[in-house]
Amino acid sequence: MIVILRLGHRLGRDQRISTHCGLVSRVLGADKIIYSGEQDSGILKNIEEVGVRWGGSFAASYEKNWKSAVEEYKRKKFSVVHLTMYGQQIHEKIKALRKKANILIVVGGEKVPPDIYQIADYNIAIGNQPHSEVAALAIFLHEYFAGKELGKNFKSAKLKIIPQDRGKKVEES
Amino acid sequence: MIVILRLGHRLGRDQRISTHCGLVSRVLGADKIIYSGEQDSGILKNIEEVGVRWGGSFAASYEKNWKSAVEEYKRKKFSVVHLTMYGQQIHEKIKALRKKANILIVVGGEKVPPDIYQIADYNIAIGNQPHSEVAALAIFLHEYFAGKELGKNFKSAKLKIIPQDRGKKVEES
Repeated sequence: MIVILRLGHRLGRDQRISTHCGLVSRVLGADKIIYSGEQDSGILKNIEEVGVRWGGSFAASYEKNWKSAVEEYKRKKFSVVHLTMYGQQIHEKIKALRKKANILIVVGGEKVPPDIYQIADYNIAIGNQPHSEVAALAIFLHEYFAGKELGKNFKSAKLKIIPQDRGKKVEES
Repeated sequence: MIVILRLGHRLGRDQRISTHCGLVSRVLGADKIIYSGEQDSGILKNIEEVGVRWGGSFAASYEKNWKSAVEEYKRKKFSVVHLTMYGQQIHEKIKALRKKANILIVVGGEKVPPDIYQIADYNIAIGNQPHSEVAALAIFLHEYFAGKELGKNFKSAKLKIIPQDRGKKVEES
């Protein structure tokens, strides 16, 4: 089971980036995203609606206290992977991480609480350069699932895209 | 040479997502990003400043008319790859695309002009599901460069991260 924890969400300012984190987690094979920071029912509703239309069983929830969320998953024997530009490079760690069936992936917001570097089992960088938590999450999941996640079948989808060379084809059921 | 064209940027609303597109392009081995839509000197400045501090020669510019930008790169014999959830799946096309040295990667904004599906040489999906242009761009570049882009050396960097198991270490020069 792969769970994402998005730290430090801020209403308004982070809405789109945080929504992208949720949608990317869903499409790249994760099971759930937990948002921390400011409570934002709009995001949870957005992600739920995407699930209703596009299928699958991805879940989104809110947890005020990120540290208790991490501790809960630690008790459940999840490995905690914090994605940060300051961490060890992904290619050095991904083989070991692929052997772990249960991972809590933590992605920061604008300001990351310093504790997370200590609490995490792994601090992992997708390039030791500033870029994007959305991209870091995407590449981590893509590497973890070794590309197989893109063939995932989303059950009970109302909408299904039929890939085209040009234009759009969507089947509705 | 890999150039990104970001369509339909809107001031304010798209600022962070468009900035992430630029930073992701830079870190994952592209040479340049061109923004279209509303002109936003703040984004160009942001990306330039990241380059000054973190090294490399990545460039960002603005082009009012996206179609003339595409035509210019077509004349220069670039392959035009439009990333869209409606396109053909990446794993079916990436081997052929890796053989092309010059690619213009087009990523849409909220509303994508329908012409681009026709003008592009390839319409490529990173999962036929809604998610994020930042993530699609990241996975495309990561696949195109086959992971080697993460070892890229950014020349003349003032700041350099020394990867750590815990905490942050940055060397300044």
